[in-house]
Amino acid sequence: MKKSLGPQTLAFPLPAFLVASYAPSGSPNIMTAAWGGIASSDPPCISVSVRPSRLTYDSILKAKAFTVNIPNAKLAAAVDFAGIVSGRNFDKFEKCGLSAIRSELVNAPYVAECPVVLECELHKTVDLGAHVMMIGRIMDVKADEGLEGEGALLDIAKVDPILYNSGGDYHRAGESLGKAFHIGKTLK
Amino acid sequence: MKKSLGPQTLAFPLPAFLVASYAPSGSPNIMTAAWGGIASSDPPCISVSVRPSRLTYDSILKAKAFTVNIPNAKLAAAVDFAGIVSGRNFDKFEKCGLSAIRSELVNAPYVAECPVVLECELHKTVDLGAHVMMIGRIMDVKADEGLEGEGALLDIAKVDPILYNSGGDYHRAGESLGKAFHIGKTLK
Repeated sequence: MKKSLGPQTLAFPLPAFLVASYAPSGSPNIMTAAWGGIASSDPPCISVSVRPSRLTYDSILKAKAFTVNIPNAKLAAAVDFAGIVSGRNFDKFEKCGLSAIRSELVNAPYVAECPVVLECELHKTVDLGAHVMMIGRIMDVKADEGLEGEGALLDIAKVDPILYNSGGDYHRAGESLGKAFHIGKTLK
Repeated sequence: MKKSLGPQTLAFPLPAFLVASYAPSGSPNIMTAAWGGIASSDPPCISVSVRPSRLTYDSILKAKAFTVNIPNAKLAAAVDFAGIVSGRNFDKFEKCGLSAIRSELVNAPYVAECPVVLECELHKTVDLGAHVMMIGRIMDVKADEGLEGEGALLDIAKVDPILYNSGGDYHRAGESLGKAFHIGKTLK
């Protein structure tokens, strides 16, 4: 028997992305986003939801670009900080000890310390009320050397990403449960 | 120095949701979705992306509802199976040994064996090409007893959700990295 928790914004797993953009002033800024995910395969798109009050909102609309940066476990405190404070009051890159690198293909900075970064052009916005979905077309993915996986492009254990447990804490990824497009074949 | 991987649909973590709906015939059906995530806080919305060729696409458009079911690690083979085959050819609930329960609030079944389920009304669709985003308004979240967390509504270790490593394998969630809205305060 299941019990009702009400209409919560809850799912597992949730990401802890760092969304980077150039503010209208030209300064690089980051924001933590747990509301988002891959949106389409072709064109390859990713979505992150941003409150219109955020500096990141104005920044993405003006620059028409952003990056989605995948932080690793070492960056958990920075990810939390970037979700607590506003880029209007803090230079979050500086406070977090992070480096902003100008993207190769889009008008947005990426976070050098993040092992994987997605360079995105703003493709579409969807106003849902409290948040506006910023759907970015993925122009390129860049990753640190040495993260290659067997079968997968990248090894999740080497990337060591952060999961956000809604309202609670951050977690690492854990052990493998088996190969995709393979372990289900036993049920056929 | 980062290397370019091209425009890949890659992010960490990615979910492995089971999206359940009633087919136009009335039969309950499930589909595995790794493209999706929470989309807005108010109204609370979740998005899952579905290819128009899928039975789930026709089902959601007709019923105007779906559920997002969070499988646990024990269901990894079923999750993989539900992503390999079509509901046009298989009764996926039966093949996976899963039970379809009629939702309380929306016109869609949920998966009894999943520890957490989100009952959603179709709120908006966004056509992106290969996939159409199905944005659902979360009407209720239902969870098994005994999953309560400290601070968070639910304990991720007790939920034991599945992460999808794009193109590779499935993973469990791992150890805690610290409390959200707390560990970042040291950087202020």
